[in-house]
Amino acid sequence: MRATVIQAPGDIRLEDVPDPKIEEPTDAVVRVVASCICGSDLWSYRGENQFDPYRIGHEFVGVVEEVGSQVATVGAGDFVVAPFLYSDNACDNCRNGVQSACRNGGGYEGCQAEYVRVPYADGTLVATPERPDAGLLPSLLTLSDVMPTGWHAARSANVGPGSRVAVVGDGAVGLCAVLAARMMGAEQVIAMSRHADRQELARRFGATDIVEARGDEGVAAVHELTGGTGADSVLECVGTGPAMLQALGAARAGGSVGFVGVPHGVELPIRQMFRRNVGVKGGTAPVRSYLPELMQSVLSGDIDPGVVFDCELALDEVAEGYATMDERRAIKVLLRP
Amino acid sequence: MRATVIQAPGDIRLEDVPDPKIEEPTDAVVRVVASCICGSDLWSYRGENQFDPYRIGHEFVGVVEEVGSQVATVGAGDFVVAPFLYSDNACDNCRNGVQSACRNGGGYEGCQAEYVRVPYADGTLVATPERPDAGLLPSLLTLSDVMPTGWHAARSANVGPGSRVAVVGDGAVGLCAVLAARMMGAEQVIAMSRHADRQELARRFGATDIVEARGDEGVAAVHELTGGTGADSVLECVGTGPAMLQALGAARAGGSVGFVGVPHGVELPIRQMFRRNVGVKGGTAPVRSYLPELMQSVLSGDIDPGVVFDCELALDEVAEGYATMDERRAIKVLLRP
Repeated sequence: MRATVIQAPGDIRLEDVPDPKIEEPTDAVVRVVASCICGSDLWSYRGENQFDPYRIGHEFVGVVEEVGSQVATVGAGDFVVAPFLYSDNACDNCRNGVQSACRNGGGYEGCQAEYVRVPYADGTLVATPERPDAGLLPSLLTLSDVMPTGWHAARSANVGPGSRVAVVGDGAVGLCAVLAARMMGAEQVIAMSRHADRQELARRFGATDIVEARGDEGVAAVHELTGGTGADSVLECVGTGPAMLQALGAARAGGSVGFVGVPHGVELPIRQMFRRNVGVKGGTAPVRSYLPELMQSVLSGDIDPGVVFDCELALDEVAEGYATMDERRAIKVLLRP
Repeated sequence: MRATVIQAPGDIRLEDVPDPKIEEPTDAVVRVVASCICGSDLWSYRGENQFDPYRIGHEFVGVVEEVGSQVATVGAGDFVVAPFLYSDNACDNCRNGVQSACRNGGGYEGCQAEYVRVPYADGTLVATPERPDAGLLPSLLTLSDVMPTGWHAARSANVGPGSRVAVVGDGAVGLCAVLAARMMGAEQVIAMSRHADRQELARRFGATDIVEARGDEGVAAVHELTGGTGADSVLECVGTGPAMLQALGAARAGGSVGFVGVPHGVELPIRQMFRRNVGVKGGTAPVRSYLPELMQSVLSGDIDPGVVFDCELALDEVAEGYATMDERRAIKVLLRP
């Protein structure tokens, strides 16, 4: 089969690799219907992570091709959403709702490919009740990562009815975080963005205010929009030091920052956090935990997070997809094998 | 009047200073009935903070001597507990329950003294319904700082019914945090202590387990005591780097660290927090927020946090009090002018 390999920063290739097979009785092999490129894939692409060449991509939806003898909840022909990490959904951490820290969990071999082997298929995959309409495919694909990750930011920052929320980051995750905050009943959602197309999507997802300024100016703008107080909850969806400082500054005293951007060069100013009672919680989203509920919202048509995909390419064009995202010509690129 | 001045590390003196007076119509002057020495006073005493000589001490209970013309809720003769910071209890941060970040708040001029001027008396002081029995005095004095600070650690770490909790630090705040966790319904409370007298108090306050080990060994012991999972909530009541790392390590994936030890040399390992979804929240306790409820618990005899005072001295002996605490010959020293 064909699979995407990142050879070096900026060097994305589609290569022929062996077809995946059932290796354990708890495995499934899934034929990829759609995959995509993640903002976090760009850390490698831009050379900000050290790495040896590897098969890249971790988000996909597809149709189950084959299952191992112990797989009970999904079977050949089922349409499934795959959380970006597999999990047994049985260990103590999974039972605590933190499937991203599953004792037996981990990442797939690259999913920007034609097929993927899924360990612990029962604990990982969630099937739709029936084959979904083609139009729902992008939204279902967001459930593999970006939508539950935005949701996780909001949950980690205790967003609830009446909350005043600021969102740092206008990538797919940040936009999904706007949507999640509104779903949880936030009264005010301030999207921090300086790109017209993303601002428009943020508004569509329920943002009540847009702040273009960054850094201290951006912080001041959030305070002004919240009557001088700051936001109850700030959703940090970038992962850089400046983004985190902006998030901490935008929070009100006693507020919470939910962070889901993979930290790169982030140092938490603990004294400031102490003085202002601003907390920080988040991390790798437990997608499997949120997936059933969010799938309902997508299938019922209540939400359409799939609009974050503003570029669709064939898997053959994956290298172009990376360039498109790197140059911010697209918010998020969907790939069809 | 006489007031305690810290001239330099290790140099504590009782000096004659001018009596405090009403300066603003919202002030009260309170005659100190009992004051005490705080673990955080030792940062200066041990030379771990830079400072010019200052009047020290921030915890006290007393009897109102005089109030300004705009003070309505307390009057001369009232017995009051003073939170360790004053607050207007009216600004946005106060209304959000974070009186420790009051827009008009601050610290008193040293309270290891005979009298204290209290700005914003209405927003700060809480009077008992009647003059309390002498036996309740130590417990009421804990409400000025250590008991609500321990409470704040537990609240910040989301302790609730059934929680499994670990407490790092066996000073007065750590011991009060044990008590707070039990009051909130924690099922298991692991006190980390290697001092027999403090272990005994921790047990009396409801600790179910004691761990003497520190660092990686201490972390491993907490995991073992929680069935391999780690604690839902860890209460960090020290403020050093090793204490924080111990707290983060002892938490389960998805768990929370409530931190109330003033941070000295703490660096938060953000990548580890991200990977394990462990959050950190806390800071300067909003004592005024918790005081009415906790005062009820003391006056009704439900709790007796005052047993953390295992040494009582006259104000004249304040220097000896500091030495006693510094050398860990006492958990906490009560001073009577």
